[in-house]
Amino acid sequence: MVDINTYLAEKKEIVNGALKQLLANSNPGEIIHEAMTYALMAEGKRLRPILCIASAETVKGSYENVLTVACAMELIHTYSLIHDDLPAMDDDELRRGQPTCHVAFDEATAILTGDALLTLAFEILASESEKNGDHALKSLQIIHLIAAAAGSRGMIQGQMLDMAAEGRSLTVDEIEAMHALKTGALIEASMQCGALLADADHHTMRCIRTYARNIGLAFQVADDILNVAGNPAVMGKAVGTDERHGKNTYPSIMGLEASRQFAQKLVHQALQAIESFDNKAEPLRALAGYIIERNR
Amino acid sequence: MVDINTYLAEKKEIVNGALKQLLANSNPGEIIHEAMTYALMAEGKRLRPILCIASAETVKGSYENVLTVACAMELIHTYSLIHDDLPAMDDDELRRGQPTCHVAFDEATAILTGDALLTLAFEILASESEKNGDHALKSLQIIHLIAAAAGSRGMIQGQMLDMAAEGRSLTVDEIEAMHALKTGALIEASMQCGALLADADHHTMRCIRTYARNIGLAFQVADDILNVAGNPAVMGKAVGTDERHGKNTYPSIMGLEASRQFAQKLVHQALQAIESFDNKAEPLRALAGYIIERNR
Repeated sequence: MVDINTYLAEKKEIVNGALKQLLANSNPGEIIHEAMTYALMAEGKRLRPILCIASAETVKGSYENVLTVACAMELIHTYSLIHDDLPAMDDDELRRGQPTCHVAFDEATAILTGDALLTLAFEILASESEKNGDHALKSLQIIHLIAAAAGSRGMIQGQMLDMAAEGRSLTVDEIEAMHALKTGALIEASMQCGALLADADHHTMRCIRTYARNIGLAFQVADDILNVAGNPAVMGKAVGTDERHGKNTYPSIMGLEASRQFAQKLVHQALQAIESFDNKAEPLRALAGYIIERNR
Repeated sequence: MVDINTYLAEKKEIVNGALKQLLANSNPGEIIHEAMTYALMAEGKRLRPILCIASAETVKGSYENVLTVACAMELIHTYSLIHDDLPAMDDDELRRGQPTCHVAFDEATAILTGDALLTLAFEILASESEKNGDHALKSLQIIHLIAAAAGSRGMIQGQMLDMAAEGRSLTVDEIEAMHALKTGALIEASMQCGALLADADHHTMRCIRTYARNIGLAFQVADDILNVAGNPAVMGKAVGTDERHGKNTYPSIMGLEASRQFAQKLVHQALQAIESFDNKAEPLRALAGYIIERNR
């Protein structure tokens, strides 16, 4: 049995170390560097990088060569948080236990900091040294996959749908389609890239994608529940914000109890998808439970 | 002799056709697609793609395989314009002869549209079909080069410096350093990528970089002059905005006449850098003059 808290703590430390090193190569002394560090090194769960690592481990039992991709996923996730938090979007003031980037710096700096983190993600994805032709082809495949997931047919479209839905009611199917893009696309891409780098075969890849899709949505349902019933001091961000913004959430559509049951069903489906995997998949199994049992 | 207006018109049409095709593969029917098309397909000079093409032509006499990179440069340039025009930054209302993106749509859509164009640039750079290992290695090199030029040590840092300088006086050296990042980095990257794809040797590459650095700065000096002395109806954007924003410009620091002489000196230096090139460099020679003689 994997102790999920130990696993998460270990992997988070590895990811944080790698992220810190990335920034050291950025441009210290400049405000843009300070703002990038502020947003990126704040206390985050590092869920996407950890899922990328766990996916590679599940296939191959090791994860050394996926750290760059794992970091890129966190850079892209952090950029999306900074931009989503802006006054013109969700107008949030607290994130990861500290004032949002535009509050701590200013709006212009926050916009550029998001831009810089997104750009840095692609810079590091293209910069691994000692590449041969085969590695290069795989790197290109990964860059393409990540850009597609983060772009106007993926995460960005999800944010557009989220904003368009404010103040009007979505059906359960519509909210699911929105989350599949807004958070699901990047979570799925993280796990796909981990598996790709570990040379997963076609069947394994398909199982991992099904797992990713289910826990991605479960994560969002859990997030919605925490926004209603969570403890802001533990979470490092405000609660009740969804209702204040007239956001469509699972609790607002199906009620709190049905939302909890739905999240559990999704986790069950995720576990089923990787049922045939050996014990290298134990971290993934433990992660599935954590996704909905977490309190932050 | 190359007729520069014919050359520019021809190449612009080719670039516009390629850009249109790119967007057709995006997500038609969605607002984000509409906003991307609105910003990208507005009447622009397409200077960066044309410089990329002209650079490849100078080396090899052809440019077919550089069109994707040329388009990526225009996507990145357009994203930077959208974000720079936002209320939190330069707060401009007119761009390329039409209302800026945040005026035509809204601020949130404009932020996401910029994000989407930037992300699409990397998606297309990684997506060329029929790549072998060597092509893939070169594509990675190009992605790395472009991301570095556009990122927090390049274009974004230039915009940070530009904003930080509002209302205080820069020296000529400081303003040059700012422009080298804000516009120079992307112009230089465009030409470097064109030359790289045409398999330029080390010496040729160095000459092209010197040319690019000089015309990049000349372009900015000319832009500053047009902002003082240009015709807004011809330019498709307002004039006098630099002075209103307390921006440091060449005319404000050294006066209009000295600025014109400085621009000419830069063009002269650019031409010197490619003096040894054969007649395939004629478009570059003609472009150098156009940069400072243009009226928009």
